[in-house]
Amino acid sequence: MGSTKGLTGPIMDFECVAQREAPPIGQLNPPHRLLCGPGPGNADPRVHAAMALPEIGHLDPAFISMMEDVKALLRYAWQTNNSFTIPVSGTGSAAMEACMANLVEPGDKVLIGCNGYFGKRLVDMADRYGAEIITMEAAWGTVFSFEQIKAAVEEHKPAILALVHAETSTGACQPLVGVGDLCHDNGTLLIADCVTSISGVPCHLDKWGVDAAYAGTQKCLSCPPGISPLSFSERAMAKLMNRTDKVKNWYLDMKMVASYLVGGKGATRSYHHTAPISMVYAIREALTIVAKEGLESRWARHRKNAEASGPASKTWASSVSWILSTGYRHLQPLRCRRGLIRVRFASMCSTNIKWKLETASATLKGRSGVLA
Amino acid sequence: MGSTKGLTGPIMDFECVAQREAPPIGQLNPPHRLLCGPGPGNADPRVHAAMALPEIGHLDPAFISMMEDVKALLRYAWQTNNSFTIPVSGTGSAAMEACMANLVEPGDKVLIGCNGYFGKRLVDMADRYGAEIITMEAAWGTVFSFEQIKAAVEEHKPAILALVHAETSTGACQPLVGVGDLCHDNGTLLIADCVTSISGVPCHLDKWGVDAAYAGTQKCLSCPPGISPLSFSERAMAKLMNRTDKVKNWYLDMKMVASYLVGGKGATRSYHHTAPISMVYAIREALTIVAKEGLESRWARHRKNAEASGPASKTWASSVSWILSTGYRHLQPLRCRRGLIRVRFASMCSTNIKWKLETASATLKGRSGVLA
Repeated sequence: MGSTKGLTGPIMDFECVAQREAPPIGQLNPPHRLLCGPGPGNADPRVHAAMALPEIGHLDPAFISMMEDVKALLRYAWQTNNSFTIPVSGTGSAAMEACMANLVEPGDKVLIGCNGYFGKRLVDMADRYGAEIITMEAAWGTVFSFEQIKAAVEEHKPAILALVHAETSTGACQPLVGVGDLCHDNGTLLIADCVTSISGVPCHLDKWGVDAAYAGTQKCLSCPPGISPLSFSERAMAKLMNRTDKVKNWYLDMKMVASYLVGGKGATRSYHHTAPISMVYAIREALTIVAKEGLESRWARHRKNAEASGPASKTWASSVSWILSTGYRHLQPLRCRRGLIRVRFASMCSTNIKWKLETASATLKGRSGVLA
Repeated sequence: MGSTKGLTGPIMDFECVAQREAPPIGQLNPPHRLLCGPGPGNADPRVHAAMALPEIGHLDPAFISMMEDVKALLRYAWQTNNSFTIPVSGTGSAAMEACMANLVEPGDKVLIGCNGYFGKRLVDMADRYGAEIITMEAAWGTVFSFEQIKAAVEEHKPAILALVHAETSTGACQPLVGVGDLCHDNGTLLIADCVTSISGVPCHLDKWGVDAAYAGTQKCLSCPPGISPLSFSERAMAKLMNRTDKVKNWYLDMKMVASYLVGGKGATRSYHHTAPISMVYAIREALTIVAKEGLESRWARHRKNAEASGPASKTWASSVSWILSTGYRHLQPLRCRRGLIRVRFASMCSTNIKWKLETASATLKGRSGVLA
């Protein structure tokens, strides 16, 4: 039996009296919504069921094994062999910041494609990590041509080029064929924002030479937000591992996260932070559903639903019009009186929940093209 | 009807072929564990049920209203009137880093109490945000006396004093009575790590003068990890709002998070990141359960279970001994052959799940006092 007499201070009895009363909060009762706006989509009921399974510890061998499953499934979703392909313990913006915090070294030239809301966010993040930022601009709703990208990369030879694969705010899908090779020829790493594209449109990280990609779970993966896919190529990992300074972000320090989720020599794992256990169950289940459906079928389903959504939207309100081009494969931007909105048609499209325009219009804030 | 011919590039048909096959991953099947180690504890089944409710958008008025409930309930759990009392969109370490990223300005003197694993983590984080760090050391398992704290604060007059209220790695509970007044007399902000203490032992942020507190959900709140309580006093908010530089962390920039979760003039909310919807449901439900049980009953229950756990542990193995003093109110550190471990007795203690030593010993890594 141990004894620590005198080692610690007592808690006074008067402290054991609560002076503030509990607020009168009623039962949790979220309304049913068909979510087609730029925020989260509806999660698959199987994912919700997985989240209700009992917690295990974040270092339990069964948990480590589950994490390995998630990594393998993510590699499939992204068509990559990248060893460092993991779920980040936060929502999509955390994985986005993980790219910037780990790959941008102070003074690095970072070229960022700004053709929507999320390009601007990349600029803000890169700025916080000391990047020398160069922006490449295009009108919202459009994408960059290969020639435009080539000219900018060859002119600036940046350490990093960051492009948004699918712009959540406009629905535009940036072609990435050949961009990786172009980057590597110029000593540049390619980062791609795949928040809205993962499993909704083709994402070939290896074939396209993408060095770092991040995504959200709450879009085409039909999983609640709270965890976010991230993948680094060997080139990206080499840049990170060769850094001599500390990454200026503890929670998202991927050197440390790698020692937990990938393991060191002999695959020993060291504790970094507590992973969000239930969200790991959720993403594993969501990715299992992706694997079962098959990527090709899933891409085709998203395209079909996107194509159907324009005409369907006319049944809501005569003020709504739509945009359809080959660049919009899974997101359907709609125009209406109060500006530009995006309506996404994912797995929920085939359910029998009644469509309501108010669901979509709740995402409007009056300014054209601004994500509400 | 809109048209964007020529605005976007096409996705080539050859890209719609997946080249990597789906891995053969089986059904999710986590084992049942009674979690008493330093990681997450078992979540309340009511919390799991809440997480299975359908998602709504992160800007839906119903979600904003739910967030207000969470804030009110957190104020009760922490016995504070702090307006800025919110759930951070990550696990406990994210809320810890939110304190450091937002309140430490480059060059600030930061005094940190190091008497366990998490004091060291605070040092690492403060270092990344440019603090001039002063450490105050005490043996692992012990706490700092008021005189020791007073001497250090008066000598250094730091911008910030950070103390761990309940050290998860040792079970020691740091008395905080009078520490806030001492800090404010010396122009110092007081930060308290309440990861393991919230709702398990008395936490009186206002009475103690704590300016910034962070916590985990997966300990005494019986909620899965993935979201984490944070509270800033008016003093702390003033330091943040008076900063002229950008916070060097986008995801955890509480100026921006405040514009989303607290609102600006006229209570307008602006989008920052997508909150982890299901985890917000979870923490709301967990805090509702805390309010229903009542803090005083909850503190008493944790204490009773902690006191019972020492003798109970002898039924597991003769090599186990225990420590019991007035300083350990809700955490029960156990010693065994392979080092020091902590066994926590929370709400699950009253269930009929069979105890297993292996559950606890899975958290051992051989080094005395090291959190595995």
